[in-house]
Amino acid sequence: MSLKRKVAVLGATGAVGQRFIQLLQGHPWFQIEVLAASERSAGKKYKDACPWLMETELPKEIAEMPIVNADVASVEQAGEVDLVFSSLPGDLAGSVEEQFGALYPVFSKASAHRMDKDVPLIIPEINPDHAEMVKIQQKQRGWKGFITTDPNCSTIQLAITLKPLMQFGLKQIMVSTMQALSGAGYPGVPSLDIIDNVVPFISGEEEKMEAEALKILGNYNGYTVQNAEFQLSASCNRVNVKDGHLESVFIKLEQDPTIEEIEEVFAKFQGEPQKLKLPSAPVNPIVVRHENSRPQPRFDRDAGCGMSVVVGRIRKDPIMTFKYMCLGHNTIRGAAGGGILSAELYVSKGLA
Amino acid sequence: MSLKRKVAVLGATGAVGQRFIQLLQGHPWFQIEVLAASERSAGKKYKDACPWLMETELPKEIAEMPIVNADVASVEQAGEVDLVFSSLPGDLAGSVEEQFGALYPVFSKASAHRMDKDVPLIIPEINPDHAEMVKIQQKQRGWKGFITTDPNCSTIQLAITLKPLMQFGLKQIMVSTMQALSGAGYPGVPSLDIIDNVVPFISGEEEKMEAEALKILGNYNGYTVQNAEFQLSASCNRVNVKDGHLESVFIKLEQDPTIEEIEEVFAKFQGEPQKLKLPSAPVNPIVVRHENSRPQPRFDRDAGCGMSVVVGRIRKDPIMTFKYMCLGHNTIRGAAGGGILSAELYVSKGLA
Amino acid sequence: MSLKRKVAVLGATGAVGQRFIQLLQGHPWFQIEVLAASERSAGKKYKDACPWLMETELPKEIAEMPIVNADVASVEQAGEVDLVFSSLPGDLAGSVEEQFGALYPVFSKASAHRMDKDVPLIIPEINPDHAEMVKIQQKQRGWKGFITTDPNCSTIQLAITLKPLMQFGLKQIMVSTMQALSGAGYPGVPSLDIIDNVVPFISGEEEKMEAEALKILGNYNGYTVQNAEFQLSASCNRVNVKDGHLESVFIKLEQDPTIEEIEEVFAKFQGEPQKLKLPSAPVNPIVVRHENSRPQPRFDRDAGCGMSVVVGRIRKDPIMTFKYMCLGHNTIRGAAGGGILSAELYVSKGLA
Amino acid sequence: MSLKRKVAVLGATGAVGQRFIQLLQGHPWFQIEVLAASERSAGKKYKDACPWLMETELPKEIAEMPIVNADVASVEQAGEVDLVFSSLPGDLAGSVEEQFGALYPVFSKASAHRMDKDVPLIIPEINPDHAEMVKIQQKQRGWKGFITTDPNCSTIQLAITLKPLMQFGLKQIMVSTMQALSGAGYPGVPSLDIIDNVVPFISGEEEKMEAEALKILGNYNGYTVQNAEFQLSASCNRVNVKDGHLESVFIKLEQDPTIEEIEEVFAKFQGEPQKLKLPSAPVNPIVVRHENSRPQPRFDRDAGCGMSVVVGRIRKDPIMTFKYMCLGHNTIRGAAGGGILSAELYVSKGLA
Repeated sequence: MSLKRKVAVLGATGAVGQRFIQLLQGHPWFQIEVLAASERSAGKKYKDACPWLMETELPKEIAEMPIVNADVASVEQAGEVDLVFSSLPGDLAGSVEEQFGALYPVFSKASAHRMDKDVPLIIPEINPDHAEMVKIQQKQRGWKGFITTDPNCSTIQLAITLKPLMQFGLKQIMVSTMQALSGAGYPGVPSLDIIDNVVPFISGEEEKMEAEALKILGNYNGYTVQNAEFQLSASCNRVNVKDGHLESVFIKLEQDPTIEEIEEVFAKFQGEPQKLKLPSAPVNPIVVRHENSRPQPRFDRDAGCGMSVVVGRIRKDPIMTFKYMCLGHNTIRGAAGGGILSAELYVSKGLA
Repeated sequence: MSLKRKVAVLGATGAVGQRFIQLLQGHPWFQIEVLAASERSAGKKYKDACPWLMETELPKEIAEMPIVNADVASVEQAGEVDLVFSSLPGDLAGSVEEQFGALYPVFSKASAHRMDKDVPLIIPEINPDHAEMVKIQQKQRGWKGFITTDPNCSTIQLAITLKPLMQFGLKQIMVSTMQALSGAGYPGVPSLDIIDNVVPFISGEEEKMEAEALKILGNYNGYTVQNAEFQLSASCNRVNVKDGHLESVFIKLEQDPTIEEIEEVFAKFQGEPQKLKLPSAPVNPIVVRHENSRPQPRFDRDAGCGMSVVVGRIRKDPIMTFKYMCLGHNTIRGAAGGGILSAELYVSKGLA
Repeated sequence: MSLKRKVAVLGATGAVGQRFIQLLQGHPWFQIEVLAASERSAGKKYKDACPWLMETELPKEIAEMPIVNADVASVEQAGEVDLVFSSLPGDLAGSVEEQFGALYPVFSKASAHRMDKDVPLIIPEINPDHAEMVKIQQKQRGWKGFITTDPNCSTIQLAITLKPLMQFGLKQIMVSTMQALSGAGYPGVPSLDIIDNVVPFISGEEEKMEAEALKILGNYNGYTVQNAEFQLSASCNRVNVKDGHLESVFIKLEQDPTIEEIEEVFAKFQGEPQKLKLPSAPVNPIVVRHENSRPQPRFDRDAGCGMSVVVGRIRKDPIMTFKYMCLGHNTIRGAAGGGILSAELYVSKGLA
Repeated sequence: MSLKRKVAVLGATGAVGQRFIQLLQGHPWFQIEVLAASERSAGKKYKDACPWLMETELPKEIAEMPIVNADVASVEQAGEVDLVFSSLPGDLAGSVEEQFGALYPVFSKASAHRMDKDVPLIIPEINPDHAEMVKIQQKQRGWKGFITTDPNCSTIQLAITLKPLMQFGLKQIMVSTMQALSGAGYPGVPSLDIIDNVVPFISGEEEKMEAEALKILGNYNGYTVQNAEFQLSASCNRVNVKDGHLESVFIKLEQDPTIEEIEEVFAKFQGEPQKLKLPSAPVNPIVVRHENSRPQPRFDRDAGCGMSVVVGRIRKDPIMTFKYMCLGHNTIRGAAGGGILSAELYVSKGLA
């Protein structure tokens, strides 16, 4: 008899849902019990509901699993579950996640509830203490379960690199992104839009980056989160890359550390997942490369099994304090992998 | 009998040299008399010396022309020339251009002499008055001819957009570029380096951008150029796009114009080439797009026959004053087309 | 007062519809009077109904035109039309085209009626005599108008090269295609499917190629078409190219001409459009390249303004008689340009 | 003390040499003792001699190893070696491999000696008996060592699929390839040549495919190889894919097996590497996919750790007997992995 927690994946047929399925294969703490998606897919076998987008094979037992509709009654009829991962599309996520949150711990990759005052927006290495806020949420809403959220993919990797910089007095961040195709889901970006091209616009992305980072790096005062006080400006672009968001970052600090000091705080950065040795925690949340042309998406996105953020080209800036490049795997650390690490954190803290 | 000026193209086999040849077909003022390149190509027919990289056909008469070595004696033996376009590689350009400059007007796309104190760095719409500096150069060096230079491709398009902003008190520019493959010449970027990838480094590019813009937008005091006083920081990336550099720009101004005012100064901007109706001058040096996802390299690089710079996504910035995207065709406006427009300016001013 | 024929474009918002609009700008015989599409677009201005996919600008007057529903009543209410171009999606085309065919000459790029016994399948250079069959069709169906069709894009370019080979006794054709993204319409192929990839399957494409070529190159006996007697086998692949289908062809002939003889019949091939000097007829329907690495999509797709088929690498085959590569622009010669040329043929013959 | 055989890799800095290094990490029978390359690299540390092209990290101990010149004296001075892998460029390989072959077993990926009468051309699953021919070679040449070769990458994957078809009387093969960029080495194909393009020519490739398959599938009569009697025609194309050659194959057999019978002989095919359980042998040399759009390079190239050939779209052909697609990883099964498997075969047979 397995002692693993049984999980339902909501939005299991989408690009992030598929990554959840892939990463949960052989997970020591979690096992997939129910796959749920929209009405269009409900009732089909998984293998008939969507093209499998991962380069690894679709696991045989997943292929044959039925997909149920993403509502509590359908999920409960399909199996007993302990917790829920949600990668539902934005428009559906809002109400469906509330339905589940009343009863189950819900780990959401959707943006619907990220900025809710009583909902944590978690990066386990950055703000594990914010997780406690679900107790407030449960009390206020009278829920048995809760909703906790992960940030936007382009925010996660940036925020991880910002955390160790806060000790130098982080004041301003300008960031221009070059984001991968998989960030738009599937079918997502039409090939005719991106061949021999760059699209300098991703709907809502700049607003998310500019808002979310302040909450993640803010202070939890035992009741709610007070935003961090730095300023952030983002300009977001889609490039012809499969996976891996690359970001060109300019930073203004209060202090003026040397490049070596900055490299050191990046390289030595450790968070609670590393201390707790959570199953999905990378040994190094931040990997520093010293070659002059790294990080690059194809070569660095799989660092730390896709859970490390890779930084490079750290150099002085003529206007701000310094500039650097950062790269993260947008559907692993930036989505499903990040969600699983959050769930591991909650479980290890006894919150889920 | 043709009254056109006879030109030699130095570096005729390279990617920019080919663009010179393409754009000079049917030019009303200039006709190609001599094609010169390095020793490796000298002595061959043009068609046998290099693969033709343009999508238009290699003109038949060019195909059969012999290539001579890029030195004065060889060029003069091959034909009588009035002026010289140079797109020699950086290491060769320095001394060869001086050899020619002693005798002929040399319009150079190479970086070797850009920052020389008595050498103009020209964008005809921006600083046509700097062209007068060749008189100083001739006097100081005792030359019959002169060297005048065009900026780096990524600088040209940015500088064109900066010029009309100077009226608002231009203070700081942060720019992150996404540059096209053709900017690296041929064979240039190996396909294995760029498929499913971005390379966040272009050797010397950031330094060039940070230095050149200050000279171009500086003041010519009748003797030399005093640098402009704004600050510029660049982060340069290579993306999988054939032609067209896209730049994500953040601007700090002394004043706080509205978005409409900024759009208006961009759209109405005209320079001397427009007033003089030079043959290669675009009607609009800057084209403003209002769609939320433009400019895009594949759709906008050919605006104004590749001679217009296209801007879009002009919006307020939470840290600086505003931000926008700009795009230019790196081998037309950013290289051969820009060089030809410079030559047209000099000719129309009686300087060449 | 214009004496041009007024045309309606059905399916005007799709990738082929947009190419019709682009190519009809300034056409000497035809002018666009009505733009029609599916219910989803009807009622909108053209500029609001679809993203414009062409690299040339959306013509201003088209941008402001209303789109009407693709039915006779709606089209007639919107304007008086003389003939109809249809690039409706397959499922709609069947009945809608019949509705229009009863009243108007319909030039269709859809596959719905291509194999109908009384419907011509036309390539103007190949089988202009088949056009006469519309008289039979009108009589049989009691129609004032008619439907005439163009072949599939990958068939057109191949069939053009097969025509001059028939004099050598054409017996067998094996063809493996590498087809462009634009052949799948818009949004068409998801970028995640094709980056760093080839998709060796295009639904229905092999069947169309294997059937259509026999009809096109068959004999019209004054009543119907008797299929040609050669055999054809196709294997179809999608590659990461914007426009231009490239085909690897192996041919078995009864005779054994030299490579020079084959090149000569290709290069000298002329059809009725060339004799009639139709506005869209390329000077050379077939262009022969002698370099060992041509034709290539990016360099050859625009030959003859996209209306020429480019062949190359003509060489002896160890099994069949010879092999070669052929390339055509799939949305110009293979779609809208081919349709316009067909209409020009019908008009010049007094059939429309 | 390690009992592993010590190997030298000649051509260690090239794309295939790097793959040898990657695949030999942790190999149970072989360990890298010497890295050799051309004079240009000799004397440098490995990490300074070439950009590392693999997505996995350059192993630390390899990074620090010195590169020696690819001659016997230099290699022997650098270390004691038992056998040699060669991926030297074609022009160097001829004489250098002979120098080493006189003393050591040489497993060559170069084409120089493939067609030599006394040199085996090996695919371990297909013709392991040909390996015995090195005894003839040693006797004739008076060598202590020998040269054995692997076929061209595009030949290997095709030949593996042909072997099980020989039982049905294999008569003719027509093949059109879509080959990956890595097949051209590094820097290899310039990005400007392949973006939005296909190049329908690979120098010497068609000739190699047409000749090598006959030798591989021929009979070894105890003295030399008598070519197989089928005919093969190839048309080779380069596409914008990183790894994985895809081939469109048309086959004529004497017999007329059903599709199911063909699938069965593919799926059940096993060779000596499988029986001997060689370390690099895939469980299934041929994997049969039943989806209508597979195999695809990005999804199938890593089947069997890159050592399986994946076939799909097996269907009747209107001219030949049947047609199918096949795909293999060109730098694993088609190059370094194939070479290592050959060496394992020779070792297990006591020949090396």
